[in-house]
Amino acid sequence: MTFELTILGSSSAIPTSKRNLTAHVLNVHERFFLIDCGEGTQIQIRKNKIRFGKIDHIFISHLHGDHIFGLFGLISTFNLLNREKDLHIYSHPELENILNGHLEYFEKNISFSIIFHLLKPKRNEIIYEDEKVIVETIPLKHRVPTCGFKFTEKPHLRNLRKNVVENYRIPISKIRSVQEGDDFINDNNEIISNEKLTLPPYKTRSYAYCTDTAYSEKIIPVINGVDLLFHEATFGMDMKRQAKLTTHSTSEDAANIAKKANVGKLIIGHFSARYKDVGVILNEAREIFPNIISAEDGEKHRIELTREE
Amino acid sequence: MTFELTILGSSSAIPTSKRNLTAHVLNVHERFFLIDCGEGTQIQIRKNKIRFGKIDHIFISHLHGDHIFGLFGLISTFNLLNREKDLHIYSHPELENILNGHLEYFEKNISFSIIFHLLKPKRNEIIYEDEKVIVETIPLKHRVPTCGFKFTEKPHLRNLRKNVVENYRIPISKIRSVQEGDDFINDNNEIISNEKLTLPPYKTRSYAYCTDTAYSEKIIPVINGVDLLFHEATFGMDMKRQAKLTTHSTSEDAANIAKKANVGKLIIGHFSARYKDVGVILNEAREIFPNIISAEDGEKHRIELTREE
Repeated sequence: MTFELTILGSSSAIPTSKRNLTAHVLNVHERFFLIDCGEGTQIQIRKNKIRFGKIDHIFISHLHGDHIFGLFGLISTFNLLNREKDLHIYSHPELENILNGHLEYFEKNISFSIIFHLLKPKRNEIIYEDEKVIVETIPLKHRVPTCGFKFTEKPHLRNLRKNVVENYRIPISKIRSVQEGDDFINDNNEIISNEKLTLPPYKTRSYAYCTDTAYSEKIIPVINGVDLLFHEATFGMDMKRQAKLTTHSTSEDAANIAKKANVGKLIIGHFSARYKDVGVILNEAREIFPNIISAEDGEKHRIELTREE
Repeated sequence: MTFELTILGSSSAIPTSKRNLTAHVLNVHERFFLIDCGEGTQIQIRKNKIRFGKIDHIFISHLHGDHIFGLFGLISTFNLLNREKDLHIYSHPELENILNGHLEYFEKNISFSIIFHLLKPKRNEIIYEDEKVIVETIPLKHRVPTCGFKFTEKPHLRNLRKNVVENYRIPISKIRSVQEGDDFINDNNEIISNEKLTLPPYKTRSYAYCTDTAYSEKIIPVINGVDLLFHEATFGMDMKRQAKLTTHSTSEDAANIAKKANVGKLIIGHFSARYKDVGVILNEAREIFPNIISAEDGEKHRIELTREE
């Protein structure tokens, strides 16, 4: 029951020798969600030993090159590997035209279908749901239509205490209802309280991805209380003006959002190439929100299971 | 007076964790020629500490994605860095349409001009010339119109022997003619033979880039005697059939071309991702042509100056 984020790229528009262009992979129970796909993403996927065949859903925040130029090569590789499964891409509508024009020339005989899911970046809405996870959009504030994504695990069932199935002779057909919180009535019509049978369920885990964006308090209700928040901090406070001009965030912006949204942990990234050492940005943000780290290519961030109290 | 090749990527269509997509940089007297531009090229340029501002000419062998998908990001980075100099791209005509459509959406306010030079891949012709170097096309044999590129240094002048300018009182205005091979007549009308004044010039150096291509003896007259030949060897002899089907070369194909063209040194590359260890391909080729190495990302190959005899 993994819930783990892998940072594939942490630079902003210009990559550096240490930071690739933006892409994250979130593994939720062995579903591998790719979030943004900057140039070089397929190489980073390989280096991080993530299997191409596991990626069925790609979420694109907005149509700036540093978030999508890796799609061309990734799709080409899928095709060369004779992928058959559908590939789902969630993005601003215009991407469909761009990709179709591209595929027409470069991937004439494509072995799989691409299903486009068109986002309305101004709304918070559910765009994906299965038995384990829900994905919602987070309206962001950028020069072009942009949205972030929030991934929330579906509620877990209560955990059975040790040996209760044997000790109370619970038939298999009743196990699910016990896990859902029901008491158990045995053959002698005795009621065994659910508390005797189960422990509280694991907490649902959540991850929110917010880039590219200027400071926007509108996102706070959507991301409130997430375990892990990725929020861009393209600039330090020395470049506050540049951040405003380009509708990006500073160290303080990211930290203030994390604080006001009461998140568990903050990862900042999408760093401008002008910062050789992002320690400055990190320290400025840490003053406001202490539980913070910088995004580093290839690093994994796992959220462990914890029980509700 | 550098003549040095840097391998940026050595994989074929699918990159691996160790091999990036195809791109080479040839430094001829501080002109940095970029040859092909697979995805990730801008990152490899950074990693290899080549300055973006030094790249004015990009040569594209053919319009398969693994040779051009890095152009989008590279052009975007040039634009973000406010490049002003013209960028020259030499390629199959269709690239102009593809790039223009792309630029219209992604780089609306581009800070520099792109000058397209349209190649006729079926001919051997000079496509670039300045005072130091000539670039010619090499017609190759592939599924789509494809050509290689040959870079030849212009002939060097003869080298002045030590102290001759002072000892024979050669005026500055006469130095060039002495370097070109003329004798020198001094103020007393004595003829000083050129042999006394100069040493033979350095040999002109040359590099030929041949990928993607099936075995084609037609290229031999064009690449005959080059110091350094890059020839693709996508497959080993175990995949001879696949090589034929996909119009690529095997280990033996590359080595036979190198041998018949009497080149100085052969570099093979564009390796299929199925080979974890390319030693097999290298050994097969070495049997036929011993002075051979495999292309490895980030490796540099310098051709030193040697004097004519």
